[in-house]
Amino acid sequence: MAKQKKQPRPKAQTPKGFRDYFAHEVTERSDMLGKIAGVYHRYGFDALESAAVETVEALGKFLPDVDRPNEGVFAWQDEDDTWMALRYDLTAPLARVYAQHRNDLPTPYRRYAMGPVWRNEKPGPGRYRQFYQCDADTVGTASMAADAEICAMLADTLEEVGIPRGDYLVRVNNRKVLNGVLEAMGVTDEAQAADVLRTIDKFDKVGEQGVRELLGKGRLDASGAYIDGVGLSDEQAEPVLAFLTAKRATNADTLLKLTVAVEGSQIGQEGINELQSIVNLLEAQGYGEDRIVIDPSCVRGLGYYTGPVYEAELTFEILDEKGRKRQFGSVAGGGRYDGLVKRFTGQEVAATGVSIGVDRLLAALREKGRIKSQDQGPVVVTVMDRDRMADYQTMVAELRNAGIRAEVYLGNPKNFGNQLKYADKRNSPIAIIEGGDEKENGIVQIKDLYLGAKIAESASLEEWKGNPSQFEVPRDQMVAKVRDILAGQD
Amino acid sequence: MAKQKKQPRPKAQTPKGFRDYFAHEVTERSDMLGKIAGVYHRYGFDALESAAVETVEALGKFLPDVDRPNEGVFAWQDEDDTWMALRYDLTAPLARVYAQHRNDLPTPYRRYAMGPVWRNEKPGPGRYRQFYQCDADTVGTASMAADAEICAMLADTLEEVGIPRGDYLVRVNNRKVLNGVLEAMGVTDEAQAADVLRTIDKFDKVGEQGVRELLGKGRLDASGAYIDGVGLSDEQAEPVLAFLTAKRATNADTLLKLTVAVEGSQIGQEGINELQSIVNLLEAQGYGEDRIVIDPSCVRGLGYYTGPVYEAELTFEILDEKGRKRQFGSVAGGGRYDGLVKRFTGQEVAATGVSIGVDRLLAALREKGRIKSQDQGPVVVTVMDRDRMADYQTMVAELRNAGIRAEVYLGNPKNFGNQLKYADKRNSPIAIIEGGDEKENGIVQIKDLYLGAKIAESASLEEWKGNPSQFEVPRDQMVAKVRDILAGQD
Repeated sequence: MAKQKKQPRPKAQTPKGFRDYFAHEVTERSDMLGKIAGVYHRYGFDALESAAVETVEALGKFLPDVDRPNEGVFAWQDEDDTWMALRYDLTAPLARVYAQHRNDLPTPYRRYAMGPVWRNEKPGPGRYRQFYQCDADTVGTASMAADAEICAMLADTLEEVGIPRGDYLVRVNNRKVLNGVLEAMGVTDEAQAADVLRTIDKFDKVGEQGVRELLGKGRLDASGAYIDGVGLSDEQAEPVLAFLTAKRATNADTLLKLTVAVEGSQIGQEGINELQSIVNLLEAQGYGEDRIVIDPSCVRGLGYYTGPVYEAELTFEILDEKGRKRQFGSVAGGGRYDGLVKRFTGQEVAATGVSIGVDRLLAALREKGRIKSQDQGPVVVTVMDRDRMADYQTMVAELRNAGIRAEVYLGNPKNFGNQLKYADKRNSPIAIIEGGDEKENGIVQIKDLYLGAKIAESASLEEWKGNPSQFEVPRDQMVAKVRDILAGQD
Repeated sequence: MAKQKKQPRPKAQTPKGFRDYFAHEVTERSDMLGKIAGVYHRYGFDALESAAVETVEALGKFLPDVDRPNEGVFAWQDEDDTWMALRYDLTAPLARVYAQHRNDLPTPYRRYAMGPVWRNEKPGPGRYRQFYQCDADTVGTASMAADAEICAMLADTLEEVGIPRGDYLVRVNNRKVLNGVLEAMGVTDEAQAADVLRTIDKFDKVGEQGVRELLGKGRLDASGAYIDGVGLSDEQAEPVLAFLTAKRATNADTLLKLTVAVEGSQIGQEGINELQSIVNLLEAQGYGEDRIVIDPSCVRGLGYYTGPVYEAELTFEILDEKGRKRQFGSVAGGGRYDGLVKRFTGQEVAATGVSIGVDRLLAALREKGRIKSQDQGPVVVTVMDRDRMADYQTMVAELRNAGIRAEVYLGNPKNFGNQLKYADKRNSPIAIIEGGDEKENGIVQIKDLYLGAKIAESASLEEWKGNPSQFEVPRDQMVAKVRDILAGQD
């Protein structure tokens, strides 16, 4: 503290990888979170808000094996030496909460949670170290009805926030089917299994022939580098290719093809039966292939998932930063996991859930022009006579009481031009002017700023002649007139 | 990591001083934040959401003069050795944001912000290390109209969230008047001035005579301990007492009394003129002493305030943890501060603003019975035949499509009693039952769980005889009947 006075002024900067959100960026997100919460609530899910801070021990994934365990998370030591960290997702805290409060919670426990999470990662363009997630999970049931419900809810949620049917797909797969494929191949070595799974993950990028090469001897990639293969024989690789190319026009046909791919594997057949249950439940509720598809190439989060996995993908094309067309891609994903609560309790607790990447979903809506690029500003009551501030405040009070967003100009009123520039910067729809003359005559001037901007832009002023952007109204009709103009501007 | 496998299971516990919020605790808070944001927005304030993390340098108050600067804040070092910390309020980040973005922001800049803040303090009963604040500030104007506006907005906000007029008061004072009192007393020594201010702060507790003693030779307090006095003569102490007892029934009379108390002090008179401006502006808009009062005993946050200070107090009585009646007290406070942005820019930037303690305000509404103690649970469709899960899912889909919160029971359906216990734990209004017989006859059983609970509670069953809590309806009338019952339960 003592040193501070001699130091240069502090830099006014967000820490590296963090950013500020202004006005409509904040309200659009909270509107979206509100809509998502509405769907989750209607499905019977209860809200949960845990603190941003957990013990590193409870988070589990990032335990201190070094002096400072800040790999991946932001962590520090409490005064009693306990390591604490900012949560990196909403699933790890759910496992802790369920284990801690399980005697008071209903079983099954349907919960939703929304809020920021933090990652101690290298920031990049568009990649921030704090971002929002919005999760729904059902803990304490092994029923496939829980997974089916979450897939249906995900589809409903996307439509609720403004992604029309046809612009998204929920892709569903099952980790057990993948295990079945490995079994059918006779792959038992863990390292080799991991290599195969990594290869499967490249299917979207390299296609069938690419996967075939990568499972065998290897492949020359686009940059000219040679990528070593997994070293399987053609025959051994066959189940993987049968699996990856199993997708058909209907879920029923895809399941038939998958059955062939895992032939002879019990775990594989179990996975297919689970997918069949999910498809049956969804079809009974009217969710067909136009919304939810069995897709073997959906191999997300191979980490802790133990059963069905699912992912919501936006299927429309956008231009990337280099101007190339590409699909927007994934905005949500999840699956069934059974090990997370067990860490605390020792007993397996079945659970399944989804996480929506709120910021990516907002970006998608912005791409589609479904989100306003600017907030409407307030009606600005200008100050012509600083001694009559009370009059102007009374005017804004009347407007606000009528539910109209309004404010009096609070800067230095000397330069009237600055007041209009301010209104412009605020994207104000209307400015109100009441000088001494107006006051005396019991009127106010109303300036329609949107119309004014249109007239200023227009090549021909003729067409606007009968439609002036500024006019006077009796003082006691101010609120009614403002309301009329706002209604017309919408 | 290597050690972990041998370690005992992690404890399922929130870190010390943190807690989880469930269901209605979360939704009530977000409802309240939404209402407050609505008022702030109508007053022309724009949302701002900065990250939870700031550089310690930007936060300023807690600079690293020790190896680990975690006094008061949760802090850690980034990979490039920058000290970062969780924000401890929303004002310090605002100063950083305004300094960083001032060329792009309108001036004056009206902004609101809401979210958690973190304090590295010793937790106590009801005192948590993460809690919510909800702030509104106007940066870049010295006009008293900005302070008056925030006082009016504070009153409107309290009424909007459910505190009726008469149950709250916004108390307003001015730091300059306090300085004027010190000047009138001839107190120039900083340490002595601080002693006097501390004594003023005790007025609510010890009263006029107590303050008189504490300013003089000292005082025997309730515990029998002798508290040393400031050592002023009776004559010197007079302005403080004139100041503290200046409060009258009308703001006009209070200001007259205050004028006497600061007689001869220029800064004191300036403060009174500012209060007069605020009173004039508020009265013009109809905010009288029933809502906003000049109150010399409001001496909050003597730290960085430079002009008007204000505080919202709830005036109804509650019982404290020992069963004693006491006033609920303060739920919001703020004032004018000019030094915060200057830290970054070197130029003084006038600013004034308020912070609402959201959790205290929620506690107040709970005291007044204005907040539901429990969320209404979903309609629960029970599972009589696990092979017909698709039927049950179809029923919930119909209910949800009608906007009714509903779910199918996803636990083990074997024991029907457990399904009803679950519905009870969820506070479900209705359970739906469709066994094989019902299915065959095209009906469902509807169980009105609220009515059932009332009948169970009632001493005389007679009165409920014609009003059974369970009845059957044709399957195709299920949604309509559920809607009727829910409407009746409200």
